[in-house]
Amino acid sequence: MSSLPNMNPPNIDTQAALFEFLLQMGDNTLILGHRVSEWCGHAPVLEEDIALANTALDLIGQTQLWLGLAGEIEGQGQTADNLAYLRDAAQFRNVLLVERPNGDFGNTIMRQLLFDAWHHEMLKALQNSAEPRVAEIAAKALKEVFYQFERSADLVIRMGDGTEESHQRMQASLDDNWPYTGELFVASVSDMALAEAGIAPAADSLKAGWDASVNDILEQATLKRPESGYMHQGGKRGIHTEHLGFILADMQFLQRAYPGATW
Amino acid sequence: MSSLPNMNPPNIDTQAALFEFLLQMGDNTLILGHRVSEWCGHAPVLEEDIALANTALDLIGQTQLWLGLAGEIEGQGQTADNLAYLRDAAQFRNVLLVERPNGDFGNTIMRQLLFDAWHHEMLKALQNSAEPRVAEIAAKALKEVFYQFERSADLVIRMGDGTEESHQRMQASLDDNWPYTGELFVASVSDMALAEAGIAPAADSLKAGWDASVNDILEQATLKRPESGYMHQGGKRGIHTEHLGFILADMQFLQRAYPGATW
Repeated sequence: MSSLPNMNPPNIDTQAALFEFLLQMGDNTLILGHRVSEWCGHAPVLEEDIALANTALDLIGQTQLWLGLAGEIEGQGQTADNLAYLRDAAQFRNVLLVERPNGDFGNTIMRQLLFDAWHHEMLKALQNSAEPRVAEIAAKALKEVFYQFERSADLVIRMGDGTEESHQRMQASLDDNWPYTGELFVASVSDMALAEAGIAPAADSLKAGWDASVNDILEQATLKRPESGYMHQGGKRGIHTEHLGFILADMQFLQRAYPGATW
Repeated sequence: MSSLPNMNPPNIDTQAALFEFLLQMGDNTLILGHRVSEWCGHAPVLEEDIALANTALDLIGQTQLWLGLAGEIEGQGQTADNLAYLRDAAQFRNVLLVERPNGDFGNTIMRQLLFDAWHHEMLKALQNSAEPRVAEIAAKALKEVFYQFERSADLVIRMGDGTEESHQRMQASLDDNWPYTGELFVASVSDMALAEAGIAPAADSLKAGWDASVNDILEQATLKRPESGYMHQGGKRGIHTEHLGFILADMQFLQRAYPGATW
């Protein structure tokens, strides 16, 4: 990553690109955090219930930092709350992977693994961002994501290399989620601008690290890596599956029904 | 039912009671209509998919009439749309039975039967309402509800007296939904005022007719009528299960996010 002198504020294009990028980061953690929180009170064992709730809380905490900075960069007075609760689906920049329904516990953990492996690579790279506020959030989030990744990897290995039933379910979940992983490595226009400015890594530069850890984990889990054929995309430019609308309806109800409500 | 001279407009208490009653009628059909519409595209066979969608449409059509009249009676300029899309859960007056989750197809039909049997009795009685606008809506809705009731009865009999699996599922659905039927026959304060004014039947006066048809249908379906023990209630006075909030979040999203939007 090249470095950008900190004393030179980014020009307006870089700022617009940075705003988009921060939405991507914050919307990924917001929507995945919401999905994971749906497990609260429903997980198969108490320990996993608490672990999932903690994962959700970590992700929502990261959301506050990413969307908070997004509002600051945009400079129009929007808070993290505004951005979370008052945008409609087409303005969300999360990848489609994180809005996929939870399915069973195994499927939730498989989705988490595929995301964590990317998230971990991304945050490692962002620690060296030329934008110090980005580097700072990344360093903080990385500590949490390190544990999330360790945990999802451990569970995927245990369930993949478990009973015949758990193995089959994990393979099915892997096959189902796989076509949603390609989008993680496809650069948007703003991604390219930020890579050039040294603020974020090039999207495809994370692929080798992701492949290495995912391959290793899948091998230990005795799961077969699917062929990479057609890959869904669109989330990063606001074209979402129907699932996001239902998530937003639940998530935004209070602020939509009682605008500006605080407590 | 005693008759109230039409030339004497109801006093303010009766008007407030009538407003509440119209919300009960309209919220029952709105929420059940929404629940039934969730089947659209998901029913087990095409014919049932279309039948359920038509049932939902009939119920939503009746909602427009009941809530439209409610707005008129209230006299504060609220339309059926305002009442449907801009009230929060505590202001809804539907019985808890209609907000219960669909479950499987059999459970949806069982819930429908238990409601239809009441709805049919209620509309028959309302045809003789001292309030001609109520009588008119009831007469119109009764034609549709007659067919809905015939259909749910027929399906309950076929599935109850079907395979061992379908029989067991229908019995389980009956047992699950049964504790939500008691509320249909419990009068609210406004119900009592309207019964006195001859505008609506006394809530408990519908019980004998409901019992007779339900008993007959359950017998043909070889299903065992559950013991009537504890009965849930609260919906008619705005105390709802958690399910209603999720229904409203989905149903109201558009008007909450884009207030006043039309098309």
